[in-house]
Amino acid sequence: MDVASTVFMFLASILVLFMTPGLAFFYGGLVSRKNVVNTMLSVFFITGIAILLWILVGYSLSFEGDYYGIIGNLHHVFMNGINLNALTTYKIPTSIYSIFEMFFAIISPALFVGAVVGRIKFKFLAFFIILWSLFIYYPMVHMVWSSNGFLAKLGTLDFAGGTVVHINAGITAFVLSAFLGRRIKRNSTVKHHYNLPWILLGTTILWIGWYGFNAGSAFGLNNVAMQATITTTVSAAASMVAWMILDIIFVKKPQLIGACTGTLCGLVGITPAAGYVTVFGAFVIGICATCVSYLFVNYLKAKIGIDDALDAFGCHGVSGILGSIMTGLFATKDVNASIANNGLFYGGGIKLLGIQLFATLITILFVAILTSIIILFLKMFMQMRVDHKSEVLGLDRTEHGEDADYTVEISDNLDERKRDMYIHSDEFKGQFAQLNSHSHLK
Amino acid sequence: MDVASTVFMFLASILVLFMTPGLAFFYGGLVSRKNVVNTMLSVFFITGIAILLWILVGYSLSFEGDYYGIIGNLHHVFMNGINLNALTTYKIPTSIYSIFEMFFAIISPALFVGAVVGRIKFKFLAFFIILWSLFIYYPMVHMVWSSNGFLAKLGTLDFAGGTVVHINAGITAFVLSAFLGRRIKRNSTVKHHYNLPWILLGTTILWIGWYGFNAGSAFGLNNVAMQATITTTVSAAASMVAWMILDIIFVKKPQLIGACTGTLCGLVGITPAAGYVTVFGAFVIGICATCVSYLFVNYLKAKIGIDDALDAFGCHGVSGILGSIMTGLFATKDVNASIANNGLFYGGGIKLLGIQLFATLITILFVAILTSIIILFLKMFMQMRVDHKSEVLGLDRTEHGEDADYTVEISDNLDERKRDMYIHSDEFKGQFAQLNSHSHLK
Amino acid sequence: MDVASTVFMFLASILVLFMTPGLAFFYGGLVSRKNVVNTMLSVFFITGIAILLWILVGYSLSFEGDYYGIIGNLHHVFMNGINLNALTTYKIPTSIYSIFEMFFAIISPALFVGAVVGRIKFKFLAFFIILWSLFIYYPMVHMVWSSNGFLAKLGTLDFAGGTVVHINAGITAFVLSAFLGRRIKRNSTVKHHYNLPWILLGTTILWIGWYGFNAGSAFGLNNVAMQATITTTVSAAASMVAWMILDIIFVKKPQLIGACTGTLCGLVGITPAAGYVTVFGAFVIGICATCVSYLFVNYLKAKIGIDDALDAFGCHGVSGILGSIMTGLFATKDVNASIANNGLFYGGGIKLLGIQLFATLITILFVAILTSIIILFLKMFMQMRVDHKSEVLGLDRTEHGEDADYTVEISDNLDERKRDMYIHSDEFKGQFAQLNSHSHLK
Repeated sequence: MDVASTVFMFLASILVLFMTPGLAFFYGGLVSRKNVVNTMLSVFFITGIAILLWILVGYSLSFEGDYYGIIGNLHHVFMNGINLNALTTYKIPTSIYSIFEMFFAIISPALFVGAVVGRIKFKFLAFFIILWSLFIYYPMVHMVWSSNGFLAKLGTLDFAGGTVVHINAGITAFVLSAFLGRRIKRNSTVKHHYNLPWILLGTTILWIGWYGFNAGSAFGLNNVAMQATITTTVSAAASMVAWMILDIIFVKKPQLIGACTGTLCGLVGITPAAGYVTVFGAFVIGICATCVSYLFVNYLKAKIGIDDALDAFGCHGVSGILGSIMTGLFATKDVNASIANNGLFYGGGIKLLGIQLFATLITILFVAILTSIIILFLKMFMQMRVDHKSEVLGLDRTEHGEDADYTVEISDNLDERKRDMYIHSDEFKGQFAQLNSHSHLK
Repeated sequence: MDVASTVFMFLASILVLFMTPGLAFFYGGLVSRKNVVNTMLSVFFITGIAILLWILVGYSLSFEGDYYGIIGNLHHVFMNGINLNALTTYKIPTSIYSIFEMFFAIISPALFVGAVVGRIKFKFLAFFIILWSLFIYYPMVHMVWSSNGFLAKLGTLDFAGGTVVHINAGITAFVLSAFLGRRIKRNSTVKHHYNLPWILLGTTILWIGWYGFNAGSAFGLNNVAMQATITTTVSAAASMVAWMILDIIFVKKPQLIGACTGTLCGLVGITPAAGYVTVFGAFVIGICATCVSYLFVNYLKAKIGIDDALDAFGCHGVSGILGSIMTGLFATKDVNASIANNGLFYGGGIKLLGIQLFATLITILFVAILTSIIILFLKMFMQMRVDHKSEVLGLDRTEHGEDADYTVEISDNLDERKRDMYIHSDEFKGQFAQLNSHSHLK
Repeated sequence: MDVASTVFMFLASILVLFMTPGLAFFYGGLVSRKNVVNTMLSVFFITGIAILLWILVGYSLSFEGDYYGIIGNLHHVFMNGINLNALTTYKIPTSIYSIFEMFFAIISPALFVGAVVGRIKFKFLAFFIILWSLFIYYPMVHMVWSSNGFLAKLGTLDFAGGTVVHINAGITAFVLSAFLGRRIKRNSTVKHHYNLPWILLGTTILWIGWYGFNAGSAFGLNNVAMQATITTTVSAAASMVAWMILDIIFVKKPQLIGACTGTLCGLVGITPAAGYVTVFGAFVIGICATCVSYLFVNYLKAKIGIDDALDAFGCHGVSGILGSIMTGLFATKDVNASIANNGLFYGGGIKLLGIQLFATLITILFVAILTSIIILFLKMFMQMRVDHKSEVLGLDRTEHGEDADYTVEISDNLDERKRDMYIHSDEFKGQFAQLNSHSHLK
């Protein structure tokens, strides 16, 4: 066993696991108060489901055996017959390899939750995630990351999940939004995100988690892992600064949500390229990721008319596609000797670019078709969208019977009322003052 | 020095340290707004006290020398005479070994804070924690984890703290609740947890911290550490999903608090067994942990009439006892060659099960008796429970003079009032609108 | 490559990166609600700027070549010509070494943001940070941590950034506050920190991040790194408990903000000494750090009349200076064989103490003068302080057009009003109850 690399993969795995709650806070901070619990639980509960599914059949379907380069076999249900102590080709034990990949299977479906918040039935979402894992995610992993996968054999480069994770989740988000339809429109111009500090917390947890995601995809502590660390950093920074500059130009103000969104786009964009490109390549990819996602989110989205609530497609889909294609431009053997072809800008001609375009296209088609089929299938058995009243009241109360934070206590009788007034007097003093003045003004 | 394993233990230690604030957020999110600061500070300040106590006498009392298999000696006050660079049998330096164990001495007393929130005097709690560390925690560590300890010699299996941490803290929580009495009952059916996102943050920090706790208890990066990683993961996931299913059956809705509580029960349950059982064993333990804790929290607790406010006993005590006993069923040499007896289900007969039952019982009795004595002793010198008025007003103001979050500013004179109204006008517009309509309705 | 130490530095780097959002939460929790977004963004956006600047010129100016022992050269713009895979003297690759140092260049300017919140123009701050990095931070790094630096050659001991980070940022904070002037005074005695849980979250993220900061400054996993881990822990604990005791004496109540501030002072104080002192030395430094910072923040600050809003100087400046000087008292070859002179208390005479005093003084003068010049220069081109109306309204709205959390929705017409009342009825019930009673009382 390469003990140091195993420590590294243990750390990387924990970082990837932490990304899922990070995403829950990011999405939960963005929605309106009445959908916070629903949004956070919709992300978090995937942890439980995806772990059990992975143990049950996911690992086997992804990495053991092969059917047509598309999917593995079912010989190892419940990890049966897998020697967890056996070393992989990277000299890390199978146990930690399977855990690292297991945590990818959690965060991937969590990403598309951002598109459907505020209007999807929790039950529908749960069943959708199970079928999506079985029929879309495991096949994607097998095709791209198993040595038997047909996209892997073709020479597709996807260092840490451009196609498998981000384009996949982004396209799913797009299709789900299309089937769900738009949220009920409010006659209000006031934006009312639940809480911006939670958005920042989510972003920064995602950022540190991404080092596990990207550097860990080298499957050992080596120069490629360290290169992925530095490219991830530079792309995120370039993308963040670029988004802030665009905000200053178009919104006239730098904004926290913009800085966070920009950061994530840079992280998404570099993901497929992280271990293949130079620091300069990472810088360019970061800038471009922000540009295309900014354009999509602020201009194209409204024209398409798809209500991708929290821009799961706009960020992960758009920047993911960009990163996947730009890997065909910027990949170089100088950084990673294991690749077969240099990118276009490094003298490799259009071969790698062609492969990347093809793999991206295949992913888009495969995911769009399968997602549509799963949705149509599930709609035969259950309601997809919550009813109008529930949407207005918010899914926290209607789907879960919980509130995100404390509400002022309600007293049902007059005696209690007076005691409450005493207890809460400080909270209300300000309001009383206002109201008195207000009534004077009347 | 095994450098890679030392890096692993450094990481594990930091993860364990991070659990304590994680617990502060979990408990702080659960209480009502008026006790948030008190709850978080009651957990967090233990960090300072427990570190200093550990350096002063804790390490020496726990691991150096021996009296009757129950307690160590006082030869190394303030780590005096300890060579921090000396290697332990695991080839990690004594420095990191003592830090790892020091951080266990923080989180353990922090767990029982959940039982007493909202009504215990901060001063009483502080003195209780000091005496509890000296007379209960260090002896428990010595008995179970020192090679001289009598439970260790008996062959008790407690991989990462089933008896030492969870049963210990759970029973303490139970006894403290009994002595304190019930909280003042409110005439209100509305639940008013301070903030659910903080509960989720706490849960997920605890989860990732638990990898330090459980995998780190292998004291090196080896196959047992990796097995503990995978069993911890599977148990947490099984327990989370099980709790959600029970909520769907009994509450008719999946709930965020349920998902979080379930996760923690699974983590508690697997703790004593983490490095001894298979993936399947972990799955069963996770399911069972949720079942017994769910039953206790929702049905038995009310009958017993003990007001364990945040279910410190219901989660840590109940799931801890279950995990400790089930280790006697599922432990197997196939996973960990170092153990003397297989569990009942792996052909080892009832010997190990008997030992586990005995150690569990000893722990319960030892902790219950000592906790009672410490409480009775301290009550001779100071008040245990806050007075009625303080409890109604909340401990944040009465014990600390702080508020958890901003309150609307109060103006003491009329000129200020108008300026305030201008500043806060947006915050109140909605309310004004309501009130106008409301007064029209009158 | 020393793979295990490289894993260690990878972990340490991530921990240091996480400190910056930690600081954003700490500062964001402390300010009033109307400046939360501004405060958090002012800290977070430094991440993007400092990474790009570091890649562009920072690494080269800090560590490559030398001019007069004060600054490096510009031969490696955009890391050009740097072999990222080359090993440093610590046998870790240059890639991770440059990343670790890059993340120090983020957190250092972030520290002084605490002094200027609520009244500095965002644009001014952005340009100031760029010039500060170029003309103050990179020279400080070169002088103290490059082997060619003149303070390094003198024998200055600064293990992890007493002079380079904390005194530097603290003095900058002081000078910025002086130029900005006091915040507008409110006629209110009520403290209205935005949110105390965020303060605790920030503190604890900073704490765990500090292990990367201090232990990582050994540039490999060795006995010095482990010593730094234990001294950091002990100093933080001693300082936290000391602050709580002072609060109990002077405020009559232990407070959460006090416990957090104390912790940070202990961490700052031990930073320059972490790898040079014993556990006992760390204990004394922690106690002293709290004493001097407590004295300054609660008594001296008001007399000086500088409005260092969140005590960036009071904590980082004061405790940093203390730690830097006390390193001259407590450093010992027993802990770290690489140092040339023992401290005063370990038989080394006053030589080291003299060097430490000199380096501290040089840092103070260098930073104070350069900061003043940069401010005066920038003021020629742009406004430093926001106008009065913006300060009253809060910088969240005026500088960023964002609110920290949800506000009650406003309806612009009467039809909407009724629907809103229905939707928000629960939120208002309590208030209605109060108001009814209130109107009865009138």
